[in-house]
Amino acid sequence: MRRLARYLPILSWGRQYTRGALQNDMMAAVIVTIMLIPQSLAYAMLAGLPPEAGIYASILPIILYAIFGTSQALAVGPVAVVSLMTAAAVGQIAQAGTAGYVAAALTLALLSGLFLLMLGLLRLGFIANFLSHPVIAGFITASGILIATSQIKHVLGVSAGGATLPEMLISLFQHLGQVNLITVVLGVGATGFLYWVRKGLKPALKKLGLSDGVATIATRAGPVAAVVATTLAVWGFGLDARGVNIVGSVPQSLPPLTMPDLSPELLRQLLVPAILISIIGFVESVSVAQTLAAKRRQRIDPNQELIGLGMANIGAGFTGGYPVTGGFARSVVNFDAGAETPAAGAFTAIGLALAAVALTPLVYYLPTATLAATIIVAVLSLVDFSILRHAWAYSRADFAAVAGTILLTLIFGVETGVSAGVVLSILLHLYHTSRPHIAEVGLVPGTQHFRNIRRHDVHTDPELLTMRVDESLYFANARFLEDKILDRVTGDEAIRHVVLMFPAVNAVDLSALETLEALNARLDDMGVKLHFSEVKGPVMDRLRRSHLLDHLTGQVFLSQWDAVEALTPAVCLNGSGQPVRGADH
Amino acid sequence: MRRLARYLPILSWGRQYTRGALQNDMMAAVIVTIMLIPQSLAYAMLAGLPPEAGIYASILPIILYAIFGTSQALAVGPVAVVSLMTAAAVGQIAQAGTAGYVAAALTLALLSGLFLLMLGLLRLGFIANFLSHPVIAGFITASGILIATSQIKHVLGVSAGGATLPEMLISLFQHLGQVNLITVVLGVGATGFLYWVRKGLKPALKKLGLSDGVATIATRAGPVAAVVATTLAVWGFGLDARGVNIVGSVPQSLPPLTMPDLSPELLRQLLVPAILISIIGFVESVSVAQTLAAKRRQRIDPNQELIGLGMANIGAGFTGGYPVTGGFARSVVNFDAGAETPAAGAFTAIGLALAAVALTPLVYYLPTATLAATIIVAVLSLVDFSILRHAWAYSRADFAAVAGTILLTLIFGVETGVSAGVVLSILLHLYHTSRPHIAEVGLVPGTQHFRNIRRHDVHTDPELLTMRVDESLYFANARFLEDKILDRVTGDEAIRHVVLMFPAVNAVDLSALETLEALNARLDDMGVKLHFSEVKGPVMDRLRRSHLLDHLTGQVFLSQWDAVEALTPAVCLNGSGQPVRGADH
Repeated sequence: MRRLARYLPILSWGRQYTRGALQNDMMAAVIVTIMLIPQSLAYAMLAGLPPEAGIYASILPIILYAIFGTSQALAVGPVAVVSLMTAAAVGQIAQAGTAGYVAAALTLALLSGLFLLMLGLLRLGFIANFLSHPVIAGFITASGILIATSQIKHVLGVSAGGATLPEMLISLFQHLGQVNLITVVLGVGATGFLYWVRKGLKPALKKLGLSDGVATIATRAGPVAAVVATTLAVWGFGLDARGVNIVGSVPQSLPPLTMPDLSPELLRQLLVPAILISIIGFVESVSVAQTLAAKRRQRIDPNQELIGLGMANIGAGFTGGYPVTGGFARSVVNFDAGAETPAAGAFTAIGLALAAVALTPLVYYLPTATLAATIIVAVLSLVDFSILRHAWAYSRADFAAVAGTILLTLIFGVETGVSAGVVLSILLHLYHTSRPHIAEVGLVPGTQHFRNIRRHDVHTDPELLTMRVDESLYFANARFLEDKILDRVTGDEAIRHVVLMFPAVNAVDLSALETLEALNARLDDMGVKLHFSEVKGPVMDRLRRSHLLDHLTGQVFLSQWDAVEALTPAVCLNGSGQPVRGADH
Repeated sequence: MRRLARYLPILSWGRQYTRGALQNDMMAAVIVTIMLIPQSLAYAMLAGLPPEAGIYASILPIILYAIFGTSQALAVGPVAVVSLMTAAAVGQIAQAGTAGYVAAALTLALLSGLFLLMLGLLRLGFIANFLSHPVIAGFITASGILIATSQIKHVLGVSAGGATLPEMLISLFQHLGQVNLITVVLGVGATGFLYWVRKGLKPALKKLGLSDGVATIATRAGPVAAVVATTLAVWGFGLDARGVNIVGSVPQSLPPLTMPDLSPELLRQLLVPAILISIIGFVESVSVAQTLAAKRRQRIDPNQELIGLGMANIGAGFTGGYPVTGGFARSVVNFDAGAETPAAGAFTAIGLALAAVALTPLVYYLPTATLAATIIVAVLSLVDFSILRHAWAYSRADFAAVAGTILLTLIFGVETGVSAGVVLSILLHLYHTSRPHIAEVGLVPGTQHFRNIRRHDVHTDPELLTMRVDESLYFANARFLEDKILDRVTGDEAIRHVVLMFPAVNAVDLSALETLEALNARLDDMGVKLHFSEVKGPVMDRLRRSHLLDHLTGQVFLSQWDAVEALTPAVCLNGSGQPVRGADH
């Protein structure tokens, strides 16, 4: 039973479900449902899918996540970045608007769900950690720009295309002649209105004396107001006959049972995109879930989250949806509205199912320009160039990772961008650790402390060279250490002993071990003994399992003071003369 | 002038060249030349090239290395592993024995030379460090097996093929019907003789009272003796007419001036193999050069070595050769024979040029089985499975890298093997550092030392959690730390302060910084303060450039003792009661 509860968190919270929690969850569900209707239609459009796909993708996935997920407040469904990635992946295989396109999106959801489920069952959630913050931040900013740019065509009423920023801009430019002015008025008007709602409405309402809670709800209702107003305008003035694109008829139906296309060729083509979508979606979802959980001193289990998201995506694949994940905006609304358990999600699913059956005729006259406006205003909050400034101030390598990911994503598209970003940040990390800080140290007079001879006035002896290594040793940096020491010793005939101080060496891999053995032999050829000091317990345990200590010409000292006392005792008798600085360095 | 001397080491040693050095260099050259003649023919055969290519590849390249290289004893020319890699690369493009095959080998040498030269001029020699010892060791062992297996067909006198171990074994099996018994007698006899020369001759000669030096030279002359004996046998008994394959006519000529094929398609196909050959060749060459240099307390400059090897390969491309590098066996012979300067190499080149003009008719009746025997006996010394045992004893990750590289190289061939090995060792390193050692510590009574609560009897306070982090923090392990700490704090309501002890944290990248900021905020949500202690100078410098310290709920303490004294002074008053162990851990 406890084992089962691990994989079915609903068994834990479901048994303690109270009437108070039920009321809070239902209230939250009503608020989230109203917010999700236009959002679902908009993200489906962004993904190149018919509008109902967005609503279907929010129904069964939410229920499955409520059963298998661990976050109490996460709201699962279509999100902007995953919708863009879906469009990029499926767009390479089929033309938007065709049955093949819709079928491929189902397959993508299924594959993504199976991959997430596999990671979760194998407890491989840590894989997502290889997506560094600079790569995520750069990717999200670039995706926001790509998404906003992709929606400009709807605001202008033109039929431009393209998957990368240069392609989209060129295509928009080529289609400028088709611009529909009424669409522009509606689209730009809606964008301006929504932007004002987001930035200016809440302070204005609070000035009018409304409470913070009411002002927040009014602000969140902005997109619904824009939808209602522009729909009425199109219907009232018959603008659809004057070239304004509208959503049109949406089937009045519960989510259909769909069977994803499982042809091997399609699976092969969608495998890599599905993996990328899974990992990006998981990272976004987990970071939202962790933020919300910490506010209530709760914990989420990342591996169980993988299972929850995996089931949600599998559900999306079989019910006319497309890849989903835990969204930031909807989860925060859910949390703020007081959702206490995943049951709030289930109630939201019921609300959306009712909407799918009853309300879809109402969006017939909704202009796509309004949906584009809601997307543009929503994703502009993703665009954050301040990360570039922070990264530059903090470290050049991190800056390179952010800037590289942004540029690669904009120029080559989402898949290349995020893959190259991961490779870039791994290479930068390896490069950084491949040139470790290695300081020549001497004794601070009157103490037992050893410090860098370049920064401090310290005692040394010409026969003894002590180098402090400030990095774990592994294949990429071991030879750097060897070169540094051999260069130093070759030029200085006086040296008889080399001590490597290892207080910050947390690991020595086999390559580094062999390099240390080679260094020992080469120093021996020069008549110089090699010693170690302050080697950590786990590193020493490992060295004992090798032959290094058998062949070591020198000794291993517990402390550097012991080493100096044993090798060049004169240095320890300080006060007896002038400090001797390390030769010509 | 000094700048020029950096790129032309010959300007340094050339001006101090003495009569004594001249005599030593000439003597070494005679010995190396005799050894190189059969070896060059054999390696050319291994590479699938006509025999003279091996001699040509040893002439101009040696001279160019003498001008540009920094090692005093390195002997450059064809080597076994690079010959195998050449066969694998060129064999994908053309059929061995065709003009296209020879032309592609020239292009490969030129591309490889240009790549090495570029690395050297850009001072990017450290790239070779990403080839870890386990990958190199596994690759060399697997290559030795592949090379020896590839020569069995010559010993049996059959025309089998294949580039991977399964392919070769299947092909050999299919061609068993063609076996030529006289060839088998010659081949197996030569292999057995050479093996005995290598293992048993030297001790036997020394027992007979010969000096070590003479015994060594006699041992090295073994291949020449086998060549002479089997050539005479074929000539005397007319064995070539009875199906024994012979070397046949080799042109009597100085190296021709050749122009590598520069068609874009060929360049594209050979680019990746050229890069792999360059890096493998460079690693082999530098490790030989460093070993020999250390014996005379000399240094080599890896970046200048890249230039020297680059020029040597460019030279090979224009004079009928194929990719070359510094070989282990020939360099050791050169060194042992007393070579003092790179001029020894130039004299060897003159010797080989004379051989190419005058001696090639003598090898007409040399059976290819003898050459195969010299290769098999030479490469069996490369095969060393003891690395598997050592690696297993030392670390499972290193073992996985060795075993993975061996298997992948045997099954999929040299290019896939070495590339996959590099990726594998990087992933294993990242995996290892992604799960750092993090210990909960407490105060050792009566001291100011803090130790792991699981290993020592220490004082702690239920309000204070101290975690010592034993690894630099970066994107792949930051979330692991966060999870570990949040898990610990979520389950223990008593905790009011968390101190992270950073004495072994050598770096904190931007991802880790943001994770620490998130940890600070999440602990704050739980009413817990976050502190740091024993942060290293460079890490502190960097943290000061971020916003972490501005928002930090706690403090940064110089030492952990300061932290405990400030936060839970009762713990420091030891002797006053029982040590309190960290709750339920």
